[in-house]
Order: sequence, then C-alpha cells, then structure tokens
Amino acid sequence: LYFKHMFIKEICMDYVKNRKKSVSLIRTRYQESDQMGLIHHSSHIIWFEIGRIELFKNHGISIRDLEKEGILFPVLKIEAKYIAPVFFDEEIEVHAFIKHFSKYRIGIENKILAQKEKLICKGSSEHTFVHKKDYKPIPVPGFVQQQLEKKDIPNVN
Amino acid sequence: LYFKHMFIKEICMDYVKNRKKSVSLIRTRYQESDQMGLIHHSSHIIWFEIGRIELFKNHGISIRDLEKEGILFPVLKIEAKYIAPVFFDEEIEVHAFIKHFSKYRIGIENKILAQKEKLICKGSSEHTFVHKKDYKPIPVPGFVQQQLEKKDIPNVN
Amino acid sequence: LYFKHMFIKEICMDYVKNRKKSVSLIRTRYQESDQMGLIHHSSHIIWFEIGRIELFKNHGISIRDLEKEGILFPVLKIEAKYIAPVFFDEEIEVHAFIKHFSKYRIGIENKILAQKEKLICKGSSEHTFVHKKDYKPIPVPGFVQQQLEKKDIPNVN
Amino acid sequence: LYFKHMFIKEICMDYVKNRKKSVSLIRTRYQESDQMGLIHHSSHIIWFEIGRIELFKNHGISIRDLEKEGILFPVLKIEAKYIAPVFFDEEIEVHAFIKHFSKYRIGIENKILAQKEKLICKGSSEHTFVHKKDYKPIPVPGFVQQQLEKKDIPNVN
Repeated sequence: LYFKHMFIKEICMDYVKNRKKSVSLIRTRYQESDQMGLIHHSSHIIWFEIGRIELFKNHGISIRDLEKEGILFPVLKIEAKYIAPVFFDEEIEVHAFIKHFSKYRIGIENKILAQKEKLICKGSSEHTFVHKKDYKPIPVPGFVQQQLEKKDIPNVN
Repeated sequence: LYFKHMFIKEICMDYVKNRKKSVSLIRTRYQESDQMGLIHHSSHIIWFEIGRIELFKNHGISIRDLEKEGILFPVLKIEAKYIAPVFFDEEIEVHAFIKHFSKYRIGIENKILAQKEKLICKGSSEHTFVHKKDYKPIPVPGFVQQQLEKKDIPNVN
Repeated sequence: LYFKHMFIKEICMDYVKNRKKSVSLIRTRYQESDQMGLIHHSSHIIWFEIGRIELFKNHGISIRDLEKEGILFPVLKIEAKYIAPVFFDEEIEVHAFIKHFSKYRIGIENKILAQKEKLICKGSSEHTFVHKKDYKPIPVPGFVQQQLEKKDIPNVN
Repeated sequence: LYFKHMFIKEICMDYVKNRKKSVSLIRTRYQESDQMGLIHHSSHIIWFEIGRIELFKNHGISIRDLEKEGILFPVLKIEAKYIAPVFFDEEIEVHAFIKHFSKYRIGIENKILAQKEKLICKGSSEHTFVHKKDYKPIPVPGFVQQQLEKKDIPNVN
C-alpha cells in the first residue's frame, strides 16, 4: 500500500576517489535566516565546521574519538569571504580540504557552492590540537599525521 | 579515474504514500553540542521547524512562497519533552504531522528518533498565519485549507 | 580627557529582596532575528536558560561549580507560549522562579517582558540532575535542597 | 519591604568621549558552549556583530532605521584570530571601531577581552550597503558618510 518517496536533502559524499576533499550537502535552515531575508553570515562558519568534520572522517580520523582520548581540536583562526547571498531552503555544498599541516598546525580551506555550482563563500581555518585538561597545544598526534601523509597532504614543517 | 562515494547523511523522505507525515533525517552538528557533552535542548526546537517545513512541502504548501505573498507562519506555542540525550554526529529522524487545524490555528506534533528507532524527544507546536505588515492573525489561507482537507487533516472548527 | 558614557544594556537584578525570583535584562541580537523580521522562537528558549542560571545564582547555586563536581542539570521538558512578537534591538526582561521541587525534579517558570512591562512570552521547564559519566538521574543534591528550602521553595515530594 | 539588588551584567558603554570606539559587555551564554567545554568559535562572530551595531549607534547610525528605508548592511568578509579560550558565564568586552571607509566599503576592527583585559580574540570585517530589493551594492549612504566624517574616520577613496 505504502511506498517510499525519497528526496535527498542533506548528503555528504566524497567525490574524489582518494578522499582528499569532502563535500557536504546541507539544506539551509529557516532559523539560519535573519531579518535581511538571507542566511546570517555566522551560519557559514558552522557549515565550515560540518565540512571539516566530514573531511577528517574521509581521512579516517574521528574528532569524536580523539575527544574521548582527551584531545581537542579548536580553531585558531577563521576567515570567510561572502561572495553571494544564500537564502532559506537552498541546497548548498560545503567543500573542504586540508591545505597543509605542520608540527602544531592544520590548515583547512573551504568553499560553499549553491545550485549550479555558484560560488557563494570561500574561507579557511587554522587549527591546533590541545589537551582537554588545560587547553594547551600539543603536536599533531602521530596517528593523525600518518593519515594525512597517506593522502600526500603537504607537511610544511 | 575518480568515482563517487556517497554517504547519505541528511535525507528527507515521505515514507507514508499519502504524505500525511514527514520524516527529515538530520546529522547533529558539533556547534549544537554544549558543555554537558550532549546536544543543547534548543536544537530540538530548530529541528521541529525543519520537520514542519518539510511537512508543509509534503502537503504542497511552500512557506517560502507564502512569505512572498506577505503571509507569515509564526509559532504560538511550543512544547518539548526530552526523553533521552542525543550526541554530536548522530543521525536523527524528525517526524512531523499536522494533528488538526481550525479557522485560525494549525496544530503540529513532532517526534525525534535516534538510531534504532530510539525515541529521544516528543513535542508539539501551535501556529497561526499573520500578515507581514502588522503581524496580525489571519484565517488559515483558503489554499492551505484545501491542501489539508485533501489529506483528511481534521478541521476542528 | 576621557569620561564614560554608560548605556546599561543587559543587566541582571534581583528585584525581590529574598531573591526568590531573578530578572535578567537582555538586548535582542541581530543574529536572533529571522526572515519574518522578528526574533526566532528558539531564542526565547535560550533566554529561559539565561534566566534560570541567574536564578540559581540568586539561590547561591552555581551550575558551573556543580558541573565541576560531575553533576549536570539537563532539561526534561520545556514549554513556551508566544504572546507577542519581539524584534531586534529590544530590551527584554527574563523573569524566572522555581515553582517547586521534589526528590528528582525542579520545576521552573519563566516570563519574558518587553518595554513597558508588555508580556511577550510565558513558559516553564522541568529539570533533573544527572551524573556526567552516564547521564543517569540522581536526587536533587543535598546542598541544592538546603538552598531551596532556605527560601521556602515548596518541596512537593 | 522589597528593595532592589542590582548586578550589572551586560552593559554597553562608550568609553571614548568622542565615541569612535564602542565597548559592549556581554556575559557568555550556556548555549554558546560546546562539548570541548569552551565557547564555540561561531559565537565570537555573533559578538562582533553586537559590537558593530553598538558602534554604529555611537556614530548616530541605526542599522534598524536604515533597514526600514530598504538599505541593508551585509558582511563581505570576516576574519577572527582566537587567542585564548573563553568559557561559559564569563564577562567579556567586545571592542569595535571603524578603521576606514570608501565609496562602497566599510572596514571594522574588533577585539574581545575577558576579565583583567585578557585579549581572547581579534578580528575584522568588511561591509557594503545593498538594496533590500535585489541585494545589489550601493554607495555608502550620504548620511552615513557624514556621520563617519564628523568623527574623522578615514575615507580611503
């Protein structure tokens, strides 16, 4: 009697075989809109984070598991350039890839595309790992380093 | 050379053929977590909204189009019962259906399920339509009423 | 050379001498607005929380200190009735008081007032204490109970 | 019988007589924390906005009034450097000043200080004015320009 309709709404795919890049599909939320009638610029910053968590998964690294071991991954720097407005109920793609890493830093680049590959936002972020106890920086964990080297992410040490 | 991996992350499907109910799949966001280590209870309220916007689409009603005509759909009342905690990076289902409507009101019920159909939250909301100019209530628009009656949503006038 | 202008923006005062009630003054944020042109209904839920954290301080209880001891204070139930819209850059008062408590529950009531004592929202929430380790409910801690009894908050056990 | 206690919590003051700079005092919110146990980095972006809205008021410019005339003030670029973590229930100061403006751009600088003048975040943003109808850039309105020139904000045209 019943059958399923399926509207794919928010998807994440690795479209590059070697998974150097992540692409997260997100549908913009009503709550993300503001009284200008467009999506508030702080949402893009949250989407960048969704992107990089997916990106780390693609590299075989789980932020959630690292936290269980007491290793946090805070943001040191963020940058966003807003190229075009994006509206409620749009499907967007968040692209993320790791530009390079060093002993203490990981540098990530982001792009957000709306329908028809229209670029709406470009950005980047810089991160370090810290201990949960004291929020003091620690070197990129060995396991993380290995995973990044496997994919030829440049080590700029 | 390249081919696509696809991990379905946030999907929305009408699983009931006649679309009386909507089911939106959402992956919980890092930013939605709080220092208790679980998702903050205000996110569930935002998810309810994602659910009911999808629900209206299933009924052939676009909140976005109504707004273009100067008709807004604010919340009059909201209720949520938090049954179990939900964590970052979980896939949840937001279920929504219209319980009943009257001349000035629409009553919606929500359920949020985590993996394995575990119920994590139940809630409801009440709404009216208002004019964009003065935020004064107006009767449920004729077109909306027709769409709801088509699906046998009880008119409790 | 310099002197201070001071615009009191977000203030919190206990206006009842015995501090049974808290009143938090908040200025609504641009980011809290949505494309209806008013403040999104999820912000009220966040304001309720600001109110009850202040309320607990008035009772000599610090949520932050309880968390350091591994005791969390999650929400079990929330209810909000939206009476009038509130807009960006308004000064609102969030009133909170503890209605009653029992062995495992604390019941809080909230009111939000805009300028000229205009009631814009009424609500309530129900809470329990849980252990950080397993999120399992524990009885209201002895110290909290004492503080509430000092102020004659009804124990409805 | 009753008298008022008053705890000033969130205040905004112009501490520079000529109001070239704004300082907004904000108490960090529980909802702004994340599972790292600190305030999520997207909140700083929202605080920058609180700062610049106050800043514009100090210059005699109301973003709210401009919007009523159909003129919006979106973000073109944002940058933030996170220097130290900030936690729930801290009082912070958001400093903002207009660095310069040109025919189509306004450049703002931000600093966020925690207790004891500890610098926790530095940032900047770039803005343009647009028409509400089509989101197309328009020159800095004459009135805004006058207000900025009164305070000797450099016009870098």
